[in-house]
Amino acid sequence: MQIALDAMAGDHGPEDLIAGALLAAEQAGLEVSLVGDEPLLQDYIDKLAPAPELLDLIKIVHASQVIEMNEHPVDAIRKKKDSSVMVAFDLLKQGKVEAVVSAGNSGATMAAGVRKLGRLNGVSRPGIASVFPTLKKPVILMDIGANVDCRPQHLFQFAVMASAFSRVLDISNPSVGLLTIGEETGKGNNLIKETFPLLQNSSLNFIGNVEGRDVFQGNVDVIVCDGFVGNICLKISEGLAEAAMMMLRDEILKSWMAKLGYLMARPAFKRFKKRVDYATYGGAPLLGLAGTGIICHGKSSSEAIKNAIIEASKMVKHNINQDIQRSLNSEENRV
Amino acid sequence: MQIALDAMAGDHGPEDLIAGALLAAEQAGLEVSLVGDEPLLQDYIDKLAPAPELLDLIKIVHASQVIEMNEHPVDAIRKKKDSSVMVAFDLLKQGKVEAVVSAGNSGATMAAGVRKLGRLNGVSRPGIASVFPTLKKPVILMDIGANVDCRPQHLFQFAVMASAFSRVLDISNPSVGLLTIGEETGKGNNLIKETFPLLQNSSLNFIGNVEGRDVFQGNVDVIVCDGFVGNICLKISEGLAEAAMMMLRDEILKSWMAKLGYLMARPAFKRFKKRVDYATYGGAPLLGLAGTGIICHGKSSSEAIKNAIIEASKMVKHNINQDIQRSLNSEENRV
Repeated sequence: MQIALDAMAGDHGPEDLIAGALLAAEQAGLEVSLVGDEPLLQDYIDKLAPAPELLDLIKIVHASQVIEMNEHPVDAIRKKKDSSVMVAFDLLKQGKVEAVVSAGNSGATMAAGVRKLGRLNGVSRPGIASVFPTLKKPVILMDIGANVDCRPQHLFQFAVMASAFSRVLDISNPSVGLLTIGEETGKGNNLIKETFPLLQNSSLNFIGNVEGRDVFQGNVDVIVCDGFVGNICLKISEGLAEAAMMMLRDEILKSWMAKLGYLMARPAFKRFKKRVDYATYGGAPLLGLAGTGIICHGKSSSEAIKNAIIEASKMVKHNINQDIQRSLNSEENRV
Repeated sequence: MQIALDAMAGDHGPEDLIAGALLAAEQAGLEVSLVGDEPLLQDYIDKLAPAPELLDLIKIVHASQVIEMNEHPVDAIRKKKDSSVMVAFDLLKQGKVEAVVSAGNSGATMAAGVRKLGRLNGVSRPGIASVFPTLKKPVILMDIGANVDCRPQHLFQFAVMASAFSRVLDISNPSVGLLTIGEETGKGNNLIKETFPLLQNSSLNFIGNVEGRDVFQGNVDVIVCDGFVGNICLKISEGLAEAAMMMLRDEILKSWMAKLGYLMARPAFKRFKKRVDYATYGGAPLLGLAGTGIICHGKSSSEAIKNAIIEASKMVKHNINQDIQRSLNSEENRV
């Protein structure tokens, strides 16, 4: 299976991205089209000097432009038609690859996907899902930022799409919760109150309202919210994890005994870090597009890029988009 | 100064609450009226057997009913007119105490406050602020749950009220950020886009948009958001902190070396825990009421209750409500 990787985007530059592609080729036998400045990418490949059998799985597709992290998504894709992300989605449109992975400007990636591929039939708003580590199994949160002002129908479709995606994580009959404040029915803002009956009357495995507290408990498979709330959840969690680690480090550095203790417990800390690291969970799938796309964190390591490429291949193998389409149609027919 | 403590509400029962009142009396010389079932409270006081000079600072005011955590706030205050929280706010209305502290049903506490005291002149919606620990100085987030559907004017007033409250934390000229997704002007949902100019044209020290990531950095003093978003921020932070601690513990328990290391680093962990513990920061002030009220977490320790009582006395001493009133009037006159 051929997957396009936007090899120019991300905070660290092409080297980690290419290394991720090579890992995906090595560990999963996937073919990767690196999209970006050909001479530059060729230099990095020469530097990394992969084994010839891996090199056979990698190709370069030239793109002359790059969309920067701080550019306005819609303006950027309009102006930079030969940007790496636009070229990558064009390869998908032409059937030359089966999925696109990018660690670049996520708004621009979504916009490029919608521009090149369009939406699946019946999808009002494509969205971005994210997989969070929890105490038990991972949880899928959707939307995490594509749609800041939502109507109940949008949240309902997020639930349908994220439920279909859950098969990539080997979850069957995923439970779905509606993120709000207070677990009782009828608690929340107007959007939540109007979304509740749509979910309740659907064929989804809807378990009712869940609270912010429940996100990391791992008692629900899919949590839906609008993209404004979802993005704040994502960012506040990242920010808290980072701040807490720094505060703990501060305190440990205050005494030699604590430092020594920390050194002894370091393997446990490393396992903990791996367990909560988003890199382990691949990227954030764009759901609702007529094609498969995955957004990675700008800071993604080569390990995270590898996992995202493998995740993309699983989405294709599991026919997630057909599933979304089928579920949406069957929900439509219930009404 | 006399402060009323709802001595019946909270997850742990009256003992911790009374112990908190005794600590406030001992450490800050504050007088506390314990409101609740008189014989029951008397039994607890006898059991705790405080020194006579402390006992002089404590009195009991009888209330025959209790509002439970899961009761509907507005129904509950309507039905239970002799509940501890209603009686406490009645004491404040009558001028017998200068503030109310409760660790009970926060919706009911807010509703009781509004019912008994009303709002400050010009306040559209009273709200609840919360103080979060961060890498640097604490940050005040408002609203954290009283108002789930807000208009721009409400968020603007939260900014004014939380800025006034910041004097309790010895902050002068507090910086104010608007919680949204993406730091650039114009990023966010419709509510945020419409609130931005109100803050920009005010005399507040408005620094623009902040992201979820910024909450725990400590680079801003006041962050405003609607109560739906704020409550989810609060709950997701609590949930993540709890889940992360459990995951870390799991990993540490896997090896004797890590266990030993942890024991050696334990004082550092304890300092860390104290630094992030909400108990250290007292309770959540109800802002916009024509009187001073503080809500504590249901799980509050006696230490947290003590801090909340002291915080209430500081709000009174600093004339926070007069300040709110003055700021709102002067902002009105600017328009």
